[in-house]
Amino acid sequence: MEFLKTQSRNAAIEGYIKKLVSRIDFEEIPLKNSVGRIVSLDQIASFDIPGFSRSIVDGYICVSGMTSGAGPGNPIPFTYGGEIQMGESLKDTYDSDKVYYIPTGAPIPKGFDAVVMIENTEKVNNTIYIEKSVFKGENIIYKGEDLKAGDKITEKGRVLRSVDIGAIASQGIESVSVYKKVKIAIIPTGKELKRAGEDIDAKSVYDVNSFMLKSLLDKFKYFETEIFRIIKDDEDELYGLIKDNYDKFDVFVISGGSSKGMRDITTRVIEKLGSPGILIHGIDMSPGKPTILSLCNNKIVFGAPGHPVSSYISVRFVMVPILNYFAGKTDIFEKPAGRGKLKADIPSKHGLDDFIRVIIEGEEIEPIFGKSGMVSTLSKSNGIIIAENEKEGLYKGEYVDYYGII
Amino acid sequence: MEFLKTQSRNAAIEGYIKKLVSRIDFEEIPLKNSVGRIVSLDQIASFDIPGFSRSIVDGYICVSGMTSGAGPGNPIPFTYGGEIQMGESLKDTYDSDKVYYIPTGAPIPKGFDAVVMIENTEKVNNTIYIEKSVFKGENIIYKGEDLKAGDKITEKGRVLRSVDIGAIASQGIESVSVYKKVKIAIIPTGKELKRAGEDIDAKSVYDVNSFMLKSLLDKFKYFETEIFRIIKDDEDELYGLIKDNYDKFDVFVISGGSSKGMRDITTRVIEKLGSPGILIHGIDMSPGKPTILSLCNNKIVFGAPGHPVSSYISVRFVMVPILNYFAGKTDIFEKPAGRGKLKADIPSKHGLDDFIRVIIEGEEIEPIFGKSGMVSTLSKSNGIIIAENEKEGLYKGEYVDYYGII
Repeated sequence: MEFLKTQSRNAAIEGYIKKLVSRIDFEEIPLKNSVGRIVSLDQIASFDIPGFSRSIVDGYICVSGMTSGAGPGNPIPFTYGGEIQMGESLKDTYDSDKVYYIPTGAPIPKGFDAVVMIENTEKVNNTIYIEKSVFKGENIIYKGEDLKAGDKITEKGRVLRSVDIGAIASQGIESVSVYKKVKIAIIPTGKELKRAGEDIDAKSVYDVNSFMLKSLLDKFKYFETEIFRIIKDDEDELYGLIKDNYDKFDVFVISGGSSKGMRDITTRVIEKLGSPGILIHGIDMSPGKPTILSLCNNKIVFGAPGHPVSSYISVRFVMVPILNYFAGKTDIFEKPAGRGKLKADIPSKHGLDDFIRVIIEGEEIEPIFGKSGMVSTLSKSNGIIIAENEKEGLYKGEYVDYYGII
Repeated sequence: MEFLKTQSRNAAIEGYIKKLVSRIDFEEIPLKNSVGRIVSLDQIASFDIPGFSRSIVDGYICVSGMTSGAGPGNPIPFTYGGEIQMGESLKDTYDSDKVYYIPTGAPIPKGFDAVVMIENTEKVNNTIYIEKSVFKGENIIYKGEDLKAGDKITEKGRVLRSVDIGAIASQGIESVSVYKKVKIAIIPTGKELKRAGEDIDAKSVYDVNSFMLKSLLDKFKYFETEIFRIIKDDEDELYGLIKDNYDKFDVFVISGGSSKGMRDITTRVIEKLGSPGILIHGIDMSPGKPTILSLCNNKIVFGAPGHPVSSYISVRFVMVPILNYFAGKTDIFEKPAGRGKLKADIPSKHGLDDFIRVIIEGEEIEPIFGKSGMVSTLSKSNGIIIAENEKEGLYKGEYVDYYGII
């Protein structure tokens, strides 16, 4: 194996995805089940929304010019012409000297240009008193004002939100083309690991990482994960497990595979699996430095650190962006959840991305210092901040971006 | 039906949940599938993590006092005593005058109190030169330092995050008790509605809301949703549909049920379904005002507005907090995603919560003004801000909380 220099996080991610062929497989799924999936075709409106100009309030349809000067002290009387029904065809002619009751959503007949809200009117027998002047277009939404035929509703590569799904549904579409889910195998490794339910002794620990990583990855609806059995330190067993499942998965995460005890086994297994093999071994980040990124015949094989916190940081901030790219997502990097003000100085080494667990309260950010083996520094925190590469530290009072804990 | 005054959003939510019996049904599910679910029992550590004091780096175990004064220019020689294996039982005695190689995660033998990282040492034959002094406890995580037996890992009523699941897994637990999912029936109503696939004409629109609401609610893993057939304006059909499915669901959302055309039908159906019936009819918010909150024999029945934006705002900011309470969640109100600075003045009426769609870029927040019928004001936005009740408006340059679009 060729030993590679450690790289900056961005260089590692960009270098890796250059070698990776992004996924192109897609599937047609029901629109109602598509939230959180990545759309694989631009969604274009094929007709105007609304398809007809309509009222957005309950009130009386009128000619705006004729309400000029109307007010609570100066009601203007109009003859009541009748009622326009919701969802009914319009009659041929309406008399624009009269006003007509119109419910929210009903179509605007020709010759009228505003709706007075019912609250600003009074009905006495067959006369409607209008007590507020309205401007042209008031309380009307015009044909195509929401979406015009040809408008892009959402772009290929975007994760569908409920509001995008609403806009697509407005076009009468009931299924949508999305990229297939990325299938991820999580393989816990380490001879000190015990499976839940097994007895434990002073030399062993229960497997934390595969539960945590599966849960983290399952937050993304376009990933599909499965946890495999624990591999102690048996090279043939690890190789055999991956080979047996090679065709069923796109990604193999060897949890603990970059830790001291497993590193050599992981690298030999990757070599056997195919070329180009290991692309990045070691990233300038803390925690998460001993991360292995490899590619074997376009199967993605990651060696994740054994420490729970390192593992979480490495998977979330290195592997997920790569997997986003592979999954067909356009924006591969997670956007910060927000910005806040630091309550304390944070020392940081120049030349690496430092991930600090924090507690965010309102606008204030308090760092939690803890050893990278400590899962409690994560579970007690509600945010993460990054002292990036070129920074020597972050200072009390400084505003910084933060990420939530998921 | 008794007509009720409109209420403030908080009063409506608090008034409603006072009448509601919170869910107590729980189920035991595999821990690995529990992310996003609400835990129904406090999770307490039953033993210390780590269970033994161990090294958090690869290096040499030593007695800290004996490294005093060591530096790159002043290496201190020690006799190499051998290697401590990961996951192996410790030998009975180690000689504390010597140093021993220790990998990350391996146990610390008695008589030693620090680990020198391998980078700060040099091995020449059987001699290890230590080139950095270490303090007591350096690079060691002590028994129970991460979690102590009796520590609370997570509290009843919290939504499980991947990091909580990791902490629970450290205790060798493989299943967890969570509140059962809340089953929500979404019933689209309105005689102007067409189902996707049907032909459309100038007097009708495709059903947007049930797709959008299902997708919004599906973001919460503790909800389970189903969309029913469109009910035009037939009271008996709506009543029959709910009655037939009464025992299978906890919640019925009558989408469009508070809109003008359906309001009377919805209220009569709610009366027939049982007491106490309608609790709140109308909330001081914009959009979303014509929201109906009712309770029929502890079945939750909501009448949601017909406008897509009103519907989204009403469900997310009124119904979801109520459903969170019913689902067993402790923090029922959504926390803002972050804070940003307004790029423009926003007028707002005193006495109601005004929900404004915005575009957030970095720290800057730009409002999108649009009519409440327009679903595109939601799909083009990436955030929502609230001009609360007592505010007359928000001002350019002001810092305000924002919520993401989901």
